[in-house]
Amino acid sequence: MPEARSVAHVLAAHPTAADKEAYKQLATFAARPVAIVAAVQGRWDVAVTVTDFVSVSYDPPTVLVSLFGLSRIADAVVASGRFALSVLAHDQQAVADRLGEPGAPLVGLLDHIPHSRLDERAPALIDGALTWFDLRVAAVHEAATHLLVVGEVTAMRGTPRADARPLVRWRSTYESERIVPGTAG
Amino acid sequence: MPEARSVAHVLAAHPTAADKEAYKQLATFAARPVAIVAAVQGRWDVAVTVTDFVSVSYDPPTVLVSLFGLSRIADAVVASGRFALSVLAHDQQAVADRLGEPGAPLVGLLDHIPHSRLDERAPALIDGALTWFDLRVAAVHEAATHLLVVGEVTAMRGTPRADARPLVRWRSTYESERIVPGTAG
Repeated sequence: MPEARSVAHVLAAHPTAADKEAYKQLATFAARPVAIVAAVQGRWDVAVTVTDFVSVSYDPPTVLVSLFGLSRIADAVVASGRFALSVLAHDQQAVADRLGEPGAPLVGLLDHIPHSRLDERAPALIDGALTWFDLRVAAVHEAATHLLVVGEVTAMRGTPRADARPLVRWRSTYESERIVPGTAG
Repeated sequence: MPEARSVAHVLAAHPTAADKEAYKQLATFAARPVAIVAAVQGRWDVAVTVTDFVSVSYDPPTVLVSLFGLSRIADAVVASGRFALSVLAHDQQAVADRLGEPGAPLVGLLDHIPHSRLDERAPALIDGALTWFDLRVAAVHEAATHLLVVGEVTAMRGTPRADARPLVRWRSTYESERIVPGTAG
């Protein structure tokens, strides 16, 4: 078993700054879908770019998103008990960039981003997304610096945007990918 | 706000079979990385292909994987308190296919899949993976049909395989993707 040992980085019992930095780089080697999480906080929209979300279950339809615990989006999602997740297409990198910036404005955040809502108080759904989900918070779990927010789908885009490719983040870059059809799995 | 309403599929309070099937299709529109989760159960290796995992935190380095609650891999991970996650490269679709089959054999599961271990009782790390992580189970949460397993990284592949592209699953197909460099995010 020489290969694993020769390339292993063993972390300290209390990970060092170097351990964390090394992990941060390695974590980018998993390709990530890119989405926008949106919620409503009082009169304001809160929306951020995320890559750390998964589909948890079909029964009932359940999604998980990991949010930094001290973020405004985490506050808004937990307080309102509702959020939207819009899965971005390859031609929506500008949206991902804008909502991925630190220090996004409180007012007018979505002024130049076409979006819709299911009702007046609903979180924003990004137009042109591959698909989107409107969710009710079912559970919140703390995990290190983050909150794991489990949401049950209450509504979703029934007709996916089938003419587009996914926006993918890999090795710290937004990638416009061309997909070469593989073998059906 | 006409767009959202016109394409929305609103789920029943108790989702119907049609709701679940529609969600299952829409969920495939999020591109997914492909990885192998491995654990040791007594004398045996258990290993399955997964796409539903995320990096949760850098401090400490923490990963989450969603596993079907009634699966043998979930039993093995929870009982042993340890698992490995190997993030596959584009040229490892055969590994994903083999370990993604229902009814994988108990004996000889990894016979034809090159792998290593960090120690004799450690879970299998897949050779040729983009990167891998050896993890200690920190928490387990139930969510619908699945278990959310939170793991803290104890060791990882310190030298990523930088010559390869990620294996990506999108719309129910394993994709060998060609990535066109985007703008650094």
